[in-house]
Amino acid sequence: MTTTHIGHPAPLIDGQIRVRGQLRYTGDLALPQMLHARLVTSPYPHAEINAIDRAAALALPGVVAVLTAAEMPTLPATSRHRLLLARGRVRFVGQPVALVLAETEAEAEDGAEAVHVDYSALPAATTLAAATAPNAPLVWPGGTPGGSDEAAAHGAAVAEDESDGQAPPSNVSRRVHFGRGDVAQGFAAADAVVERRYTTSMVHQSYLEPHVTLAQPEATGGMALWTSTQAAFYVQQEVADVLGLPESEVRLTAMPVGGAFGAKFVLYQPLVALAARQMNRPVRLLLTRSEEMQAALPAPRFEMTVRVGATRDGRLTALEASLDVDNGCYPDSPVGIAALLLGSLYQCENLAVRGREILTHKPSSGAYRAPGAPQAFFALESALDELAGQLDLDPLDFRLQNASRSGEPMANGKPWPGIGLHETIAALQAHPAWQQRDLARQAGRGVGVAVGGWPGGTEPAAALCMLQRDGTLHLNVGSVDLTGTDTTLAALAAEQFGLSPDRVRLIKGDTLSSPFTGMTGGSKITFTVGPAVMAAAADARQQLLKIAAEMLEAAAEDLELVDGEVRVRGLPDRTLALDKIARQTMRFGGRYAPVTGRGRHANPTAAPGFSAQLAEVLVDEATGHVTVTRLVVVQDVGKALNPLLVAGQMMGGGVQGIGWGLHEALRYDDEGQLLTGSLMDYTLPKIDQAAAQLETVMVEVPSEKGPHGARGVGEPPVIPTAAAIANAIADATGKRCRSLPITPQTLWKTVRD
Amino acid sequence: MTTTHIGHPAPLIDGQIRVRGQLRYTGDLALPQMLHARLVTSPYPHAEINAIDRAAALALPGVVAVLTAAEMPTLPATSRHRLLLARGRVRFVGQPVALVLAETEAEAEDGAEAVHVDYSALPAATTLAAATAPNAPLVWPGGTPGGSDEAAAHGAAVAEDESDGQAPPSNVSRRVHFGRGDVAQGFAAADAVVERRYTTSMVHQSYLEPHVTLAQPEATGGMALWTSTQAAFYVQQEVADVLGLPESEVRLTAMPVGGAFGAKFVLYQPLVALAARQMNRPVRLLLTRSEEMQAALPAPRFEMTVRVGATRDGRLTALEASLDVDNGCYPDSPVGIAALLLGSLYQCENLAVRGREILTHKPSSGAYRAPGAPQAFFALESALDELAGQLDLDPLDFRLQNASRSGEPMANGKPWPGIGLHETIAALQAHPAWQQRDLARQAGRGVGVAVGGWPGGTEPAAALCMLQRDGTLHLNVGSVDLTGTDTTLAALAAEQFGLSPDRVRLIKGDTLSSPFTGMTGGSKITFTVGPAVMAAAADARQQLLKIAAEMLEAAAEDLELVDGEVRVRGLPDRTLALDKIARQTMRFGGRYAPVTGRGRHANPTAAPGFSAQLAEVLVDEATGHVTVTRLVVVQDVGKALNPLLVAGQMMGGGVQGIGWGLHEALRYDDEGQLLTGSLMDYTLPKIDQAAAQLETVMVEVPSEKGPHGARGVGEPPVIPTAAAIANAIADATGKRCRSLPITPQTLWKTVRD
Repeated sequence: MTTTHIGHPAPLIDGQIRVRGQLRYTGDLALPQMLHARLVTSPYPHAEINAIDRAAALALPGVVAVLTAAEMPTLPATSRHRLLLARGRVRFVGQPVALVLAETEAEAEDGAEAVHVDYSALPAATTLAAATAPNAPLVWPGGTPGGSDEAAAHGAAVAEDESDGQAPPSNVSRRVHFGRGDVAQGFAAADAVVERRYTTSMVHQSYLEPHVTLAQPEATGGMALWTSTQAAFYVQQEVADVLGLPESEVRLTAMPVGGAFGAKFVLYQPLVALAARQMNRPVRLLLTRSEEMQAALPAPRFEMTVRVGATRDGRLTALEASLDVDNGCYPDSPVGIAALLLGSLYQCENLAVRGREILTHKPSSGAYRAPGAPQAFFALESALDELAGQLDLDPLDFRLQNASRSGEPMANGKPWPGIGLHETIAALQAHPAWQQRDLARQAGRGVGVAVGGWPGGTEPAAALCMLQRDGTLHLNVGSVDLTGTDTTLAALAAEQFGLSPDRVRLIKGDTLSSPFTGMTGGSKITFTVGPAVMAAAADARQQLLKIAAEMLEAAAEDLELVDGEVRVRGLPDRTLALDKIARQTMRFGGRYAPVTGRGRHANPTAAPGFSAQLAEVLVDEATGHVTVTRLVVVQDVGKALNPLLVAGQMMGGGVQGIGWGLHEALRYDDEGQLLTGSLMDYTLPKIDQAAAQLETVMVEVPSEKGPHGARGVGEPPVIPTAAAIANAIADATGKRCRSLPITPQTLWKTVRD
Repeated sequence: MTTTHIGHPAPLIDGQIRVRGQLRYTGDLALPQMLHARLVTSPYPHAEINAIDRAAALALPGVVAVLTAAEMPTLPATSRHRLLLARGRVRFVGQPVALVLAETEAEAEDGAEAVHVDYSALPAATTLAAATAPNAPLVWPGGTPGGSDEAAAHGAAVAEDESDGQAPPSNVSRRVHFGRGDVAQGFAAADAVVERRYTTSMVHQSYLEPHVTLAQPEATGGMALWTSTQAAFYVQQEVADVLGLPESEVRLTAMPVGGAFGAKFVLYQPLVALAARQMNRPVRLLLTRSEEMQAALPAPRFEMTVRVGATRDGRLTALEASLDVDNGCYPDSPVGIAALLLGSLYQCENLAVRGREILTHKPSSGAYRAPGAPQAFFALESALDELAGQLDLDPLDFRLQNASRSGEPMANGKPWPGIGLHETIAALQAHPAWQQRDLARQAGRGVGVAVGGWPGGTEPAAALCMLQRDGTLHLNVGSVDLTGTDTTLAALAAEQFGLSPDRVRLIKGDTLSSPFTGMTGGSKITFTVGPAVMAAAADARQQLLKIAAEMLEAAAEDLELVDGEVRVRGLPDRTLALDKIARQTMRFGGRYAPVTGRGRHANPTAAPGFSAQLAEVLVDEATGHVTVTRLVVVQDVGKALNPLLVAGQMMGGGVQGIGWGLHEALRYDDEGQLLTGSLMDYTLPKIDQAAAQLETVMVEVPSEKGPHGARGVGEPPVIPTAAAIANAIADATGKRCRSLPITPQTLWKTVRD
């Protein structure tokens, strides 16, 4: 099928207003009588609250109220966003204890500093070692609270939970296991076995825009919210639940998001809504960068062991792995998805992958672009690379030989849906950077490769297409745009309806007026909303042609839509412009009904996406400094609906992968205090560290259900980068770094050992 | 068909929040940086503007700007709302000359008083006599400007325009004529002929909430507006036109309306939007009551002559009438519809009805509930009553004998669609108040009857029904609710979908997100939007049952929807609650698409509605004071979807009819200055003047296309009241008053003559 607006590069429809600074974010909003909120947070990782003295704060000018748990509903604190304000005990540094409400931001800040909280510090477990030690201080002595729906958004709820409900209370909140065959026999059959321990760090998603929410009580008893979130309908539900309101009484507007990467589902929205209700005034809470670094929803630290064996001819005989996840104070870690992916990328008859989710006195983790996958594949792909080296196998041949194909079992025994893993690895193998790797080596560089993938998610969606009097088509969807999905959805509508994308206008309402779409997470907006948009546009087109057929006295089959007008094929004079037709449906006495198309879509089969990457590095062994001189990102995108935006995702994923590999870590001291609490200490890759040569190669193995065969493209490209860099460093130095990030210090030490 | 939620009285869904004062109107809105606007208006009916001195105003604290025509675009002032600010010349007292923008309302008011405008007064024509005199000052010496689309909203654009394009400029802006047969011959065949002159007054619609608009420039160059209007999509279009924007760049939210009655289509919205753009700040304009009385959009004054003849046996032989309408400074009067109705209610072979629209130096008229009809039927029904008296015919028998039936020709030769005129008159005839009229007469009261009707309008409409996770059904429509239509639309959706109306939530978005519906005017919202709502609910129900059938493993035909759950008929255990089903369509990995129903409707055939009324009055001949002791409002409503709300419309129409008959007049002195510029001088009927006994009788002759047979009910009940009262006064006193309103002064004089 030839397409006009699909498969061609096109800029973001809101790119101009974004770069001009004209887009209004939540932080740009203000309402009459609006109060500014600031958090008073715990300086202790674990402590009893003895008393909260608000008098000094309330005496300050502009301070209107200091809320504490006493003013909050006594709901069970089953998830992080239901902790609201600490009641009796704090469990992480940065946990909100009180909320100061004042007329200005500055007054709220002064007020927060003047609230005096008297604590009795308690022993804390802030590392995996401490949390799993005998007699460790328990994060939840009364038992682990139940989780939320959020983990499901990333396709993470896939592993069997093998936790023993009868066990005594511990900080281990979840155990998962995938296995088949006999690993002992498998290792016995191997010609070489590699067993290594790998660790990663807590990483912050480092979006530009902090968490921000504005809530306004409605006269009718409901609540209106404007917030930066990836999940409008989910936040609506959670706020309604916490406020004890019917969902229909919560009107949530998902504002443009200034970066999220998985961290912006729900956090303080229920708290802000409760404060607004308490004060009966609008309340806005905008986190500071410090608060973001200290206690938002970072990616969790993994400690992993991988043992893998293969025969001399390159057949994997056994894979055994254990993954411990430090998830902070709440469950809902990606341990299940990480274990599943680690055990599913390659086919191995003898398999044993175990995972443990462990709670510590630290902020709970959130999602970060392919949650769990960069960690798991860092371990797996490092170990495989080492094994290939020991067996003197070509690392890509070795991977291709064992890589899973469509229909072959995943670690959980379920078959892979249609995947393009082989094609992806083969494309990297054919790339000049791999073919000519010896040239790079001659130039003193190391070359490493790695593979990774993401299963993708699905969620039902609906969309509306309404033709306007000016001949534009309004496309109404409820999805939050993080990655340019609005641009792609507009193009899908344009293609299907038959007009230019610049005549399609994206309409974003709120949770009351917009059709339902799921959370923006799991690389699934284009994949699942796209078909709903296409159906809505097709419905609208059919309505339009029926009207035009009557007006033109022609058969609908003989009509075509070209350049904004309906034409009778072969009769160049018989045309009607879209605005002319639309006006006949939107005027007094009109005899045609307004063109109002609706599309609905549900598809429980996901479309996994894989990325294979090659990193070329220059290592300064004297300083431990690593320069990524080249990064090749190969990815199966199913169909690149807009290659410009897809390339942007692939490049962005690669650069964030460099962050994972070489730079980023939330580091804590022995008392659980954050050491890297600002962007001076927490180092993000700068533009000159984002690979001198950054290349993308799109592989197109169409998915069964995606629009035009497209797969989700957001998550896969971040996954194998760190592993590819680590393998490249090993190639350059002969030494393996098994902890992320690989900073100059650690590399220098590793090389010296 | 038995119905559960249709045909039963039910309160307004927003009645509680309305009476509690919790509904937020436009005047309750404020935005950060919002400027308050006040008009500087002309004190002359006709003058040249020599100079505008803004210096003193700009020197006042808080005054930010004084805008004049110099800051306005030089668009042709083709309609009242495009006059913007006067350029060079003013044409009515109260015409905006400058707009003062200040930080507070009080500062804006002070600023407006400090603007000094130097005028040279010009001769003005402020009456029909003056405007049609030889060498009259012309309102538009350069030719009458073209009209707007607004008149069409009332079904008013129905008469042939017989204006002569070649005529020299005059204040007569339009002439219409309907005729057939030979009136001279008709009068020759009559046994009696009555010829009389009738006049009515300019009447203000007297809504509680004045005109109010808030406009905010959008960062992207578009404009957002919140306003009190009956016609969201029409105002959107007009603002876009004046601002030179694509319609899609104007996002208009139609706020709850605190009364409108036809006056709130478009007035100052383009001006406010221009001011907001000029200042790049939000601007709000809220008219004062004085500004409302002086220069809003009142109902026009009519001067009419009716000549009617009949045979002794009650057959109408000829009807000749002329109608002159004083429409103020702009065309778009209801002269066409008034002439058409006057000539169509009864069948008469010899017919000649002429109308002239005449412009004067006064504010242009707007629509007021059945525009032109109370005036026309006051004349016709007074004359007929007098003729019946002369021929000693029973006035209702006489009317019944000549009343039009479905399919018979209207004055323009087109056939009446299905109507219930005969049934309506017959129901009044059967009413005890008529049957026992002699008892009232014995008690010293006069009894009068009159008939009137309204053709109704049509406009395409669309609606959406979306099932929510909490089991409620969101009904999204773009229509403005003036009369309780939201309540009725919710009931129509509930009935069709199969759940309780309190589980339906009306969603009102803005012109970008809402499906199109036409202006709220012409008694057509329930009639035209209702079928779209029913179609949307039926679409949603079908989707729901298909999903439920899969979940329940049953055939969709075997399912029923009762008490918020889907049941398999005959299997009481096989049920699924709506929220349970909905959640399966709105969750991660869900396999069912969200229930998203859409309905579309277009029907060019209107459903005319008629009212026959009986007034019983007590006249104090010594003072001229009239007490309406009883008013019986009979009306063909097609089908009373919600009898409580329909009765409310009928009673409200009757009471406004009493205002027309006895109280209301915008009176001007010889210089064109308004004498009744406040609610002290302009007397509205108070509650103790609203008929001691106010009865409603609903006749149900189903319309062909209306939902469940319903007809529009808003306009008909106001039409015949004034005529019935005048006829009752004649019955009581033997004297006829032929000018409205019939105040104590005029009645006292008439009785004394």
